[in-house]
Amino acid sequence: MENRIHIFDTTLRDGEQVPGCRLNTKDKLLIAEELELLGVDIIEAGFPVSSPGDFESVSEIAKLVKNATVCGLTRAVQKDIEVAAEALKHAKHPRIHTGIGTSDQHVFTKIKTTREDILVRSKQAVKWAKKYVEDVEFYAEDAGRTENAFLAQVVEAVIAEGATVINIPDTTGYCLPEEYGAKIKYLKENVKGIEKAILSTHCHNDLGLATANSIAGVQNGARQIECTINGIGERAGNTSLEEVVMIMRKHSWLKSDTRIDARRLNAMSRLVSEKMRMPVQPNKAIVGSNAFAHSSGIHQDGVIKNRDNYEIIDPAEVGVNESSIILTARSGRAALSYRLEKIGFKLAKEELDVAYKQFLSVADKHNVVEEEQLKELMNALAISA
Amino acid sequence: MENRIHIFDTTLRDGEQVPGCRLNTKDKLLIAEELELLGVDIIEAGFPVSSPGDFESVSEIAKLVKNATVCGLTRAVQKDIEVAAEALKHAKHPRIHTGIGTSDQHVFTKIKTTREDILVRSKQAVKWAKKYVEDVEFYAEDAGRTENAFLAQVVEAVIAEGATVINIPDTTGYCLPEEYGAKIKYLKENVKGIEKAILSTHCHNDLGLATANSIAGVQNGARQIECTINGIGERAGNTSLEEVVMIMRKHSWLKSDTRIDARRLNAMSRLVSEKMRMPVQPNKAIVGSNAFAHSSGIHQDGVIKNRDNYEIIDPAEVGVNESSIILTARSGRAALSYRLEKIGFKLAKEELDVAYKQFLSVADKHNVVEEEQLKELMNALAISA
Repeated sequence: MENRIHIFDTTLRDGEQVPGCRLNTKDKLLIAEELELLGVDIIEAGFPVSSPGDFESVSEIAKLVKNATVCGLTRAVQKDIEVAAEALKHAKHPRIHTGIGTSDQHVFTKIKTTREDILVRSKQAVKWAKKYVEDVEFYAEDAGRTENAFLAQVVEAVIAEGATVINIPDTTGYCLPEEYGAKIKYLKENVKGIEKAILSTHCHNDLGLATANSIAGVQNGARQIECTINGIGERAGNTSLEEVVMIMRKHSWLKSDTRIDARRLNAMSRLVSEKMRMPVQPNKAIVGSNAFAHSSGIHQDGVIKNRDNYEIIDPAEVGVNESSIILTARSGRAALSYRLEKIGFKLAKEELDVAYKQFLSVADKHNVVEEEQLKELMNALAISA
Repeated sequence: MENRIHIFDTTLRDGEQVPGCRLNTKDKLLIAEELELLGVDIIEAGFPVSSPGDFESVSEIAKLVKNATVCGLTRAVQKDIEVAAEALKHAKHPRIHTGIGTSDQHVFTKIKTTREDILVRSKQAVKWAKKYVEDVEFYAEDAGRTENAFLAQVVEAVIAEGATVINIPDTTGYCLPEEYGAKIKYLKENVKGIEKAILSTHCHNDLGLATANSIAGVQNGARQIECTINGIGERAGNTSLEEVVMIMRKHSWLKSDTRIDARRLNAMSRLVSEKMRMPVQPNKAIVGSNAFAHSSGIHQDGVIKNRDNYEIIDPAEVGVNESSIILTARSGRAALSYRLEKIGFKLAKEELDVAYKQFLSVADKHNVVEEEQLKELMNALAISA
């Protein structure tokens, strides 16, 4: 592996700030522990100044976590940074994540200031944070819509102050992959001292492109991906950890990989979904309940012959027991025969032809034909196991 | 607009074949009618030979639909094509969609034949279909994993037989955007007669890249996107119609657009989700219930000042009434004040400071602070509306 990509998990910060996803400290500790076992490099544990509950959680996670870096979010505000430093004081590997908006929209409309002032505040924030920790990450909020030349100026300035990681968030989820990749490339080529810091992606999914944008970032020199389990997060969410991890593993020509133990992905997804009361849609990539389910006749037949016909990931690789062959009106003889054999019925070709015809009329009335209905069908046709 | 991109909706075929998504004919007709109002160009109505119910649905949809093309799927099998032609006979604009596997995996392992035989069967299938309809689409199954040189041979052969549309499916959802885009480019540059046919994308979402791949296809010359409402479909699903449509609308430099009436997207999504019993996760792009919900204090404050700070799509553009400001422990004073004003409480700065402190301790105990709790809080602080 040429490039080790750091996985910065923000399930407990960007994910947890979602309406209805709030966790108590006990559950946050449980998830932090599992994230460490999963192999994430950095756990963003919360935004300590935002509420007493969040402060406590970050503080407890900092005490608990052994190997991963524990990170706390702040604005470019002295009080935020002091509170974050306090919350992180027991962490083995603490990181403060501070920053400010850099797009014209944020500088002129939201913050109502000048670019010069943004440069001053950015440097000042990193300076404050460096008083407490060595590892300081700076985010240029709305970098996705920030003019590249000004973004480079900000990045260069904060690296000079000692920022170790530079986060380039596509805050509104606006970029296309080629635009986002070009932005990372521009910084790699135009920022003095860029080799002293790690560039990080932080992509939102408003147009369904967070995963593709993160990978485009990696292809152009980013070495950290910020992401969440199941892609939860503000609005349409963040980059899905499980997707970027499996893309790198399945496309070895990217020469990039992570420390993630993929066999834990399925269980991790369920834990986060349950604790945060945030359902995962069945057709979610990698972790959806249908991700490895085949129902059309053509696909079922193909998978029964050879899994590789329709699956690029062995379900066991991500902790799923087996691909499912689900019987519906779209299933063919091969699937019916496969499922009947599983419950002990081995039919001759003529029997199968008759059974299949009957099966189709049952399936046309129902969504999914279950084992019980198969047995009734065998019974009606007087076929015994 | 330089390029009109055709939207080929396969919700009723690739979507409907999903475990549990089965619809009766009445519901299929309802959805077909709504798809036509939405402005899709082609409705893939089903796979007529697969079951009597499917045949009937395709036939009824063919009678109902006025403007869109109605399409039926087949294998490269004479019987399939005859049955599809029969089901489509009342359609104003019928299309038969036929094809066969072209990747080494499909040719040698699944079909167990030779490339020469695949060429013969491909041409034969198009010939059969052309006997019944002018508009014949050919799919090269598993094109995503098919060697480009052989794929070009197949495409050239079927265009010579009169295929009007060529579908290049990434059947297993394996490609990265640059690979998929390069494949479309290769075909545009190496197939004799390619100008006589429309190239179509059909991307699966196994690695979370279906949307990015479809757009990469368009950027390289594809003029049709196959997709479904909510991205439903086999395994991790298909390209989401709502995502590709809004990407083209938000990135005018792509110089590509569709006929879709985006204001119908939200209602369309709900209809399909309900009828097919397939939940949409809250963090789904464009149509998720949280797609326009803001909960962190920083974001809420920004959105209250100016929607453009954190939203690239006006919710009304896709038929959502308004962005939500949801109160949680991550909310700031601006959000609290905004929501209090909405229910008639206008607080002075000092009152707000006191109320905010109280609010945080309520919010730390609850996930979401609702209107009723705000009123209790005002009551406890003896503040009247």
